[in-house]
Amino acid sequence: MNLKNDLLVRAARGEHTERVPVWLMRQAGRILPEYRAVRARVSGFIELATTPELAAEVTLQPVDLLGVDAAIIFSDILVVPEAMGLPYEMLESRGPVFPRTIRSLADVQALNVADAESDLGYVLEAIRLVKKSLAGRVPLIGFAGAPFTILCYMIEGKGSKTFSVAKKALYTDPELAHALLQKITDSTIGYLKAQAANGADVLQIFDSWAGILSPDQYRTFSLPYIAQICDAIPEVPVTVFAKGAFFARHEMNTLNCSVVGLDWNMDIAESRQLLPDKTLQGNLDPCVLYAPFGEIRRQTRRMLEQFGSQRYIANLGHGVYPDTDPDKVRCFIDTVKEYSLV
Amino acid sequence: MNLKNDLLVRAARGEHTERVPVWLMRQAGRILPEYRAVRARVSGFIELATTPELAAEVTLQPVDLLGVDAAIIFSDILVVPEAMGLPYEMLESRGPVFPRTIRSLADVQALNVADAESDLGYVLEAIRLVKKSLAGRVPLIGFAGAPFTILCYMIEGKGSKTFSVAKKALYTDPELAHALLQKITDSTIGYLKAQAANGADVLQIFDSWAGILSPDQYRTFSLPYIAQICDAIPEVPVTVFAKGAFFARHEMNTLNCSVVGLDWNMDIAESRQLLPDKTLQGNLDPCVLYAPFGEIRRQTRRMLEQFGSQRYIANLGHGVYPDTDPDKVRCFIDTVKEYSLV
Repeated sequence: MNLKNDLLVRAARGEHTERVPVWLMRQAGRILPEYRAVRARVSGFIELATTPELAAEVTLQPVDLLGVDAAIIFSDILVVPEAMGLPYEMLESRGPVFPRTIRSLADVQALNVADAESDLGYVLEAIRLVKKSLAGRVPLIGFAGAPFTILCYMIEGKGSKTFSVAKKALYTDPELAHALLQKITDSTIGYLKAQAANGADVLQIFDSWAGILSPDQYRTFSLPYIAQICDAIPEVPVTVFAKGAFFARHEMNTLNCSVVGLDWNMDIAESRQLLPDKTLQGNLDPCVLYAPFGEIRRQTRRMLEQFGSQRYIANLGHGVYPDTDPDKVRCFIDTVKEYSLV
Repeated sequence: MNLKNDLLVRAARGEHTERVPVWLMRQAGRILPEYRAVRARVSGFIELATTPELAAEVTLQPVDLLGVDAAIIFSDILVVPEAMGLPYEMLESRGPVFPRTIRSLADVQALNVADAESDLGYVLEAIRLVKKSLAGRVPLIGFAGAPFTILCYMIEGKGSKTFSVAKKALYTDPELAHALLQKITDSTIGYLKAQAANGADVLQIFDSWAGILSPDQYRTFSLPYIAQICDAIPEVPVTVFAKGAFFARHEMNTLNCSVVGLDWNMDIAESRQLLPDKTLQGNLDPCVLYAPFGEIRRQTRRMLEQFGSQRYIANLGHGVYPDTDPDKVRCFIDTVKEYSLV
C-alpha cells in the first residue's frame, strides 16, 4: 500500500522532504489520557503489549490525537528475551524484573533463538492490525533493543544506574557475553525481518544503555552486533539510537543504517560532521516540554535551525516523560510542522 | 608542614613528577572491611560523617591499607544544603532524601549562605585531625559538590535517573534556579576556602549530574558557577570533575582550575587535545576492578600509556563500587606505581 504521508521514509532514505517529519519516542503511552483509559481495562503493561487489538489501538492514538508523522508499534524491547526463554514481569513501582537471570554459559545455551512467527506472533499481528487501520496515512515504525542493552537486563535482571552486574560479566566472562550477544542478535534479526515483512516501514534499534560503556567496550560488545543487524536488514530503513554513545558517532557513520538518533547531550553541528552519511533524528531535551509554550516553540525552532530541513527527523532526545502535558507535546509537533514549511 | 609525598600536588600544578600519583574516588568507604567495622559502631552514615574523630579515622584507612598517594576527607556533598538550612536523611536502601525541598523563590530566600566555621565546623575539625595524623605523609583532598549538582538534590529531594523535577525548574523558573545556584555558590566558596585554611592541599568539585544537561543548559546553569568557585580559590589547586560533561571539555580548559577529571566514556587522546592546559585525572571504568588481576594490570597499563606520565593523576572514572575486592583495588594502585616508575 502506498503511503499518503511518507515524509519519514523519505527523510530516512536521504531523499528530499518538503517539511521535516516529526514523531516522539514513547508517544504511545502514559502522556495520553486515552492510553491510560485502555491501560486501566487490563491487568498490566504486559497484557496490553501482548494483546494485539489493544496494542494496535494505543499505537494509533498519537496519530489521531497528536498528529505525528509516524506510528510506532506499542511493544517493549524485553519481548525478545522473553521469546528466548527468559520471562520478565513489569512492576509498576520498579520497572522490569527478571525472576531468572543469565549466570553461566550453560544458561546461554539453554536459551532459544527466538522464532518470530511462533514466539512473537502477537507483535506481528498487532503490526498487521495497525497497518490496516492506518490505511497508509503515515508509516509504521517497528523496533527492537540493541543486543548489548538486552544483555544488560538478562544478566542484571532489572534496571540499574550502573548495570555493574552486567558489566562485570563483560570483564570476567567475555565468552559468555559474546555467546549471549550472538544469540540475541540472531533472535533480533529474525524478529525485525518479520516486522518488516508484516508491514513495518522503518525499524529502530534502541541501545538504551550504550552510555555505560567505555569507547573500547562499546566497540567490542555493542557495535559489531548492531552492525550484524543492520547488514541483515536491507528491506527497510533502519535507525540506530544509542543513548549516551557520543564517543561512537564517527564509527556509527560506517554502519549499514539510514538514520542515527541523537540524545540532547550531543551537539548538533558536531554530530552532522561526525555522521555525514546519515539522516539524523532527535534531539530535544524531554524536559523542554515542561517549559511554557513560548519557550517550547523557541527551543524547537532553534533545534530545527541547527539541524537544517533535510536528512532530518524531528524528535526528542529520549522518550517523552510520562507526566508531560499532551498540549505541550502538540506544541512541539505543530512548531516543527509550521516552521519547517516556511 | 612539608609533604613527604607531594606527587599529587605537583601533578596538579603541572610540575614534573617522577611517577604518576594515584588515588580512588570513594576510597574511604564500603570496599574496606575496616571502614565497615567503624560504620557498624554508629547509627548511620550521617553520624559517621559528622563525628570528626570517626570521619578522620576512615579518611586515613586507605592511606594505610591501600597505599594511595592522597587522602580525601570522608564527608558528603550534601552537607552544604544541610548547612544552608535544608536537612537530609540517608536511607540505607534509597540514598539521600530531603524531607523539605525547594519549590519557590521564597524557599530560596529562606536559606542561609552557609557559614563554614559555625555550620560545617565538624568537617573542618576532621580535616585538622587528619592533617595531624598524616603528618605530611600524603596530601589531603577536600571537596564539595558543584552548585548544579547540589541544586538537583535540593529541588528533586532525592536521587533520580532523570532529575526531571529539578530540570523542569531550569525551564520553568530560571530566576529561582539562578538565585539558588548563586546561594549554593557563595556557600561553597566559603566552605572550600575554610577547607584549604584548615589544611586541605587540593580541592575537588564534583558535578555528578552534569551529564543530564544539554550543552546549552550546562553553559547556563553549571559552568558559570563552577567558574566563580575556581576564580575565588587561588590558595590550592582545584580539580573539576563533571561526570558526563564530555561536551564541555573545551570550555573547561578555560576554567581557573588545575585539574579536570574524566569519566570512562571520554576518549583520553581527545581529552588531551580539548584540555591542553590542564592536568587530567581518571578514568578507568570502575567495573575493570571486577576483572581478574591480569586484566586489571593490562587495562591499567593501557590507560597509563594513553595518558602519558606527566600532568596526570591516575584514578577511576567514577567512585569505586562498594562490592569491589580490596585486593583488586591494590592491584590497580600497585600497577600505577610500578609501571609509571619504569
